[in-house]
Amino acid sequence: MLTVKDIYSFLDSIAPFSSAAPWDNTGLSVGDINKCVKKVLLSLDVTGEVIDKAIKENVDLVITHHPMIFNEVKSVISDTLLYKAISSGITFISSHTCLDIAKDGVNDCLANAIGIKNIETSEEDIFLKVGEIAEKTEDEFVSLLKEKLNCKVLYNSTGNNVKKVAFCSGAGGDLFALAKEMGADALVTGEAKYHEFLDASFSNITIFSCGHFETEIVVIDALKEKLEKEFKCIEFIKSNQKNIISCK
Amino acid sequence: MLTVKDIYSFLDSIAPFSSAAPWDNTGLSVGDINKCVKKVLLSLDVTGEVIDKAIKENVDLVITHHPMIFNEVKSVISDTLLYKAISSGITFISSHTCLDIAKDGVNDCLANAIGIKNIETSEEDIFLKVGEIAEKTEDEFVSLLKEKLNCKVLYNSTGNNVKKVAFCSGAGGDLFALAKEMGADALVTGEAKYHEFLDASFSNITIFSCGHFETEIVVIDALKEKLEKEFKCIEFIKSNQKNIISCK
Amino acid sequence: MLTVKDIYSFLDSIAPFSSAAPWDNTGLSVGDINKCVKKVLLSLDVTGEVIDKAIKENVDLVITHHPMIFNEVKSVISDTLLYKAISSGITFISSHTCLDIAKDGVNDCLANAIGIKNIETSEEDIFLKVGEIAEKTEDEFVSLLKEKLNCKVLYNSTGNNVKKVAFCSGAGGDLFALAKEMGADALVTGEAKYHEFLDASFSNITIFSCGHFETEIVVIDALKEKLEKEFKCIEFIKSNQKNIISCK
Amino acid sequence: MLTVKDIYSFLDSIAPFSSAAPWDNTGLSVGDINKCVKKVLLSLDVTGEVIDKAIKENVDLVITHHPMIFNEVKSVISDTLLYKAISSGITFISSHTCLDIAKDGVNDCLANAIGIKNIETSEEDIFLKVGEIAEKTEDEFVSLLKEKLNCKVLYNSTGNNVKKVAFCSGAGGDLFALAKEMGADALVTGEAKYHEFLDASFSNITIFSCGHFETEIVVIDALKEKLEKEFKCIEFIKSNQKNIISCK
Amino acid sequence: MLTVKDIYSFLDSIAPFSSAAPWDNTGLSVGDINKCVKKVLLSLDVTGEVIDKAIKENVDLVITHHPMIFNEVKSVISDTLLYKAISSGITFISSHTCLDIAKDGVNDCLANAIGIKNIETSEEDIFLKVGEIAEKTEDEFVSLLKEKLNCKVLYNSTGNNVKKVAFCSGAGGDLFALAKEMGADALVTGEAKYHEFLDASFSNITIFSCGHFETEIVVIDALKEKLEKEFKCIEFIKSNQKNIISCK
Amino acid sequence: MLTVKDIYSFLDSIAPFSSAAPWDNTGLSVGDINKCVKKVLLSLDVTGEVIDKAIKENVDLVITHHPMIFNEVKSVISDTLLYKAISSGITFISSHTCLDIAKDGVNDCLANAIGIKNIETSEEDIFLKVGEIAEKTEDEFVSLLKEKLNCKVLYNSTGNNVKKVAFCSGAGGDLFALAKEMGADALVTGEAKYHEFLDASFSNITIFSCGHFETEIVVIDALKEKLEKEFKCIEFIKSNQKNIISCK
Repeated sequence: MLTVKDIYSFLDSIAPFSSAAPWDNTGLSVGDINKCVKKVLLSLDVTGEVIDKAIKENVDLVITHHPMIFNEVKSVISDTLLYKAISSGITFISSHTCLDIAKDGVNDCLANAIGIKNIETSEEDIFLKVGEIAEKTEDEFVSLLKEKLNCKVLYNSTGNNVKKVAFCSGAGGDLFALAKEMGADALVTGEAKYHEFLDASFSNITIFSCGHFETEIVVIDALKEKLEKEFKCIEFIKSNQKNIISCK
Repeated sequence: MLTVKDIYSFLDSIAPFSSAAPWDNTGLSVGDINKCVKKVLLSLDVTGEVIDKAIKENVDLVITHHPMIFNEVKSVISDTLLYKAISSGITFISSHTCLDIAKDGVNDCLANAIGIKNIETSEEDIFLKVGEIAEKTEDEFVSLLKEKLNCKVLYNSTGNNVKKVAFCSGAGGDLFALAKEMGADALVTGEAKYHEFLDASFSNITIFSCGHFETEIVVIDALKEKLEKEFKCIEFIKSNQKNIISCK
Repeated sequence: MLTVKDIYSFLDSIAPFSSAAPWDNTGLSVGDINKCVKKVLLSLDVTGEVIDKAIKENVDLVITHHPMIFNEVKSVISDTLLYKAISSGITFISSHTCLDIAKDGVNDCLANAIGIKNIETSEEDIFLKVGEIAEKTEDEFVSLLKEKLNCKVLYNSTGNNVKKVAFCSGAGGDLFALAKEMGADALVTGEAKYHEFLDASFSNITIFSCGHFETEIVVIDALKEKLEKEFKCIEFIKSNQKNIISCK
Repeated sequence: MLTVKDIYSFLDSIAPFSSAAPWDNTGLSVGDINKCVKKVLLSLDVTGEVIDKAIKENVDLVITHHPMIFNEVKSVISDTLLYKAISSGITFISSHTCLDIAKDGVNDCLANAIGIKNIETSEEDIFLKVGEIAEKTEDEFVSLLKEKLNCKVLYNSTGNNVKKVAFCSGAGGDLFALAKEMGADALVTGEAKYHEFLDASFSNITIFSCGHFETEIVVIDALKEKLEKEFKCIEFIKSNQKNIISCK
Repeated sequence: MLTVKDIYSFLDSIAPFSSAAPWDNTGLSVGDINKCVKKVLLSLDVTGEVIDKAIKENVDLVITHHPMIFNEVKSVISDTLLYKAISSGITFISSHTCLDIAKDGVNDCLANAIGIKNIETSEEDIFLKVGEIAEKTEDEFVSLLKEKLNCKVLYNSTGNNVKKVAFCSGAGGDLFALAKEMGADALVTGEAKYHEFLDASFSNITIFSCGHFETEIVVIDALKEKLEKEFKCIEFIKSNQKNIISCK
Repeated sequence: MLTVKDIYSFLDSIAPFSSAAPWDNTGLSVGDINKCVKKVLLSLDVTGEVIDKAIKENVDLVITHHPMIFNEVKSVISDTLLYKAISSGITFISSHTCLDIAKDGVNDCLANAIGIKNIETSEEDIFLKVGEIAEKTEDEFVSLLKEKLNCKVLYNSTGNNVKKVAFCSGAGGDLFALAKEMGADALVTGEAKYHEFLDASFSNITIFSCGHFETEIVVIDALKEKLEKEFKCIEFIKSNQKNIISCK
């Protein structure tokens, strides 16, 4: 019978937990690594709805991208998500920054979705990659992003054409200067701040911000497929979590 | 004849530079405090277009909200905005975090635009204020924000009605927990991160993010009016700067 | 019906949680502050045996001196005490350094057990107190401690008589220099290191180390009595925890 | 004629001073490295009695394990041990943490006394070693320690048999987790704190605390023998220092 | 019979040791505070010659301005000044930064020598004072300093007249900006660096550097006089220490 | 046509900017690296007089040893040297600590001026070098320095002959201990503090302090010669800057 440990080891083989950023808190969060596993739920985040679904669907394990425990925990009080998760008896694993940078991980799935080729990783920041697309006008590139990622796009319009594209799933707005140094015309990422857009304009590079959720959710199907191929007798389901941010 | 010093002193009287945040770099940035002043340009940011307009309009002084020098300057190279500003011979003043918190400053203008009443300032963070509106549904409140601030609204939908409203112009997403402690149903701010929206949902408070630019631009007209009333023989013009972030 | 909150508030009134040392993690550790309470277990520590007894006795609340969560928690794994505690559904509160220094708290109970009078608190360290006993030889004082605290005594023999006695329950060996400054002949505490004994000899003061457990367990009966007097319809039981350290 | 320098160099060859811990203050403490040497006193500590004996025996050099100057010295006052040592005209050398870890040093002498074989050093902490004994019950192992080290033993009884033994002379209670990771059933050391015993129980490893003095004094005879073999015309004597801690 | 303690207490009353700078190491350096005192040597520094003279003159106590132990002492080796001082059996006291700022202390003696009146102390740095002299040209002021302090003068010539004079005995070149803020035309001090002279020129203030020794030695006679008045039966002698820096 | 970039690259080839100390701020300070260059001014420092001469002589580039921006710049005000420099439209480059240590750089020019041979660089501090001269008495060596460097000499007279000489242009007084370790009889430098002279005496090494300006100005002619040889169609002139420190 398969246990959490088997799945943990497989995740570790495709995105080694030891390669995660030092501040990250990835791996086994809650529960029992020796538990038997028949049904697994995949989700980007742990939300109340996700735990409810995990309980209703009677899953044994939840695998998420974002860790449940980000900051120091000093108590575990009854009306928190953590208490609810522990009390459910279900086991929770996260594969966060190690999955971002892994082969076929979040960043690679993002590049794949957009159609970026000839990809190199920055030597200074492993979370930043640069590749190429067929040259497009700013407007054409915005349309491409909207279509492929099903998102709104925020950008500091420079009017520049886009051919060399840097990218970083999640919150990568602070990487625009490094992207510029690598010769990129544009940086595609999930989140950027006002002052990052402003400074990017001074550096004559365009930041295209496509949503934290939208630049990361692309990994779930790819991960599910890999797990299903490896573990044929385990059932994997998705949480169907929607972006927690509404936009009107 | 009036000089920059007269305007500097007036700004200091309505939003004391000494009340700015310790990390801020507000006050006289570039130029000559003893220069005579006949024409002044007001703008949220210093951008290349703003300097061009200042030169073309032959202004003596530019007053902005955001400072031109944010970080340590180690050299002043010819293709930078700072070099361009100094070479123009024009004087530049910024009134940043001191204007945020001043009476009739950025935060107060934001509250005024939305119609928030009975306002108190947090004892723990001077940039956070809380007040009240006539109770509204989430949808009604989104419509109000869109209309009054002429913006898109990003929010983590909780379905809660909104009556007690915390607010912080600019980037204030990290203040949601403090807002919750003060009993607020919602936090209105200019920018928030994905993980702030996520954590806010766990805390059962809604963050309404209306744009850094849109929550701050409201101060310019109010400031222009005050300056015109005080300095009748000086001409004040606006930069008509658009939000540097496009959204599609 | 009484809830954990009622007991929490009472503990806060006799030993305010806000008076705990900054590094301490006292108060509600695990569970639900709004839960109804009929039966409470008192113990110095949370051990596996203590949780077992709490489950078997069907208690609603466990009150301990030492907190369960001392260091940063990054995960909650199934074979840990914390997981066991949360899964039990029982609520856990600790009153640690605030109880040490409270009136009739741990330090006072220790003084009481030994018979120390005319007690003053150090102005430099709130955990150190100094008082007086009828003058005794070193040997007589060792006998007194063994009898009253039911413990072994470790000490750096100086041959000095003991009249003025500093004391600090738990691990207070590092306070000998302060004790000397206050004019004490001896320091009674629960733990001291070899180098502290050595340095104390140089300073001509005797440290009498009577056991961490033995200098703190004295508080349990006193606390139980107070709680029973305040909450007449709640049942309070003791864990009968033995010193976790054996000595042969 | 031999000088302190010859002995210093020999000590450096068997336990290089440069291998001491960064916080340690080992080597020449007081006096003259060029002084001629006919008689040497060996001791674990510098105490008042040790200096008295050194003066009475007319020795030229005192070699100790623990350094005389541990902390920053800002003055040298007449009633201190340091003043007494300097005024005596005798030279003082200490070989502390470098001797702990040296071949045939303190740790090795401890292993030898207990009969531990097949010893490996931890890759993470050079002060921790692990080896094996013929499997014993907890009670049998306590008896062995009492007999071989002539000490009292404090331990958190787990009831586990002991076969794989980690050890660290002096104060090493904080190493139990590392010992557990290396697969040890038990950690033998000189000192441990209450909370270390408590946490060790949770980790299911037994700490056997045998006394700081008792786990280090074993090195003196071995060191004396080595020195006598190397320096045939110098007389080496021992201080016969007793444990400074009495236990009743 | 008088002891070191009597003199220590008198020094403490005219220049409280507790008023010394936090980084300073003033007070009793070496020896015995309870020793009887018949003869005392006063000196700016402890040098080898000063100790030789102290031994030859058979003094009981040496009082210096600069402390003998400035930095952390980790060993006391035979060929150092500290070892020599301790072995001499003589007691050493220093009164350093507390004497700088005391009434009639080093700074006041410097002002007195030059003839500065109407003195105020900076509110930001207690070591900086500002007063007035009858207005002089730069050249006249240099001549005055040379005559009164018997020194060479280094200065960044600004050509400015001198009327308002800031001063700081010893090494105070870094105080020129503060001096300028207080309205001073010039800063008189003992030492300044090249970059301080350079920056002072930019700030249009003249630094007159008159020698560390020459700006401090003025205190010795004043201190000797005070001590002789207080302790009539003790003999006080001076070291006649010359400036350790030759200039050619 | 040659540009600043050509000269920048040449300077980088003879004294790589990347070899500068981490705290240093060397390279392009102000202006345009792509500007054409016909006339260049060389100077040790940027002073007001130097900028005036640069403007009057109509130079395109100023090369200095000391950087214009040493500390963090938070504003650029009209009455500062930096504002004047930027407004002049001239470009400014500095080659500071990288030139100190370069082959034929400041330190080498100093050695050359004095006639020091067989030079080695310290392995612990790249700014310190040691070489040899024909043995001289202290007085003879002072005369040599006065003649060759055209300076006053400050020194702590030890009476020692000088044969092995350590040296460091500029402010290097703190290097005397390292110089002593390398076997030097003397340290020649530009600046030393009183306490450095004092401590050097204790270590029995003589510091000869010859002036910050005088130990560095020696590089200007050598640098001018190199530049003229490389760039035949550019005119190089010197600032004729005098030492900013007068001595009387």
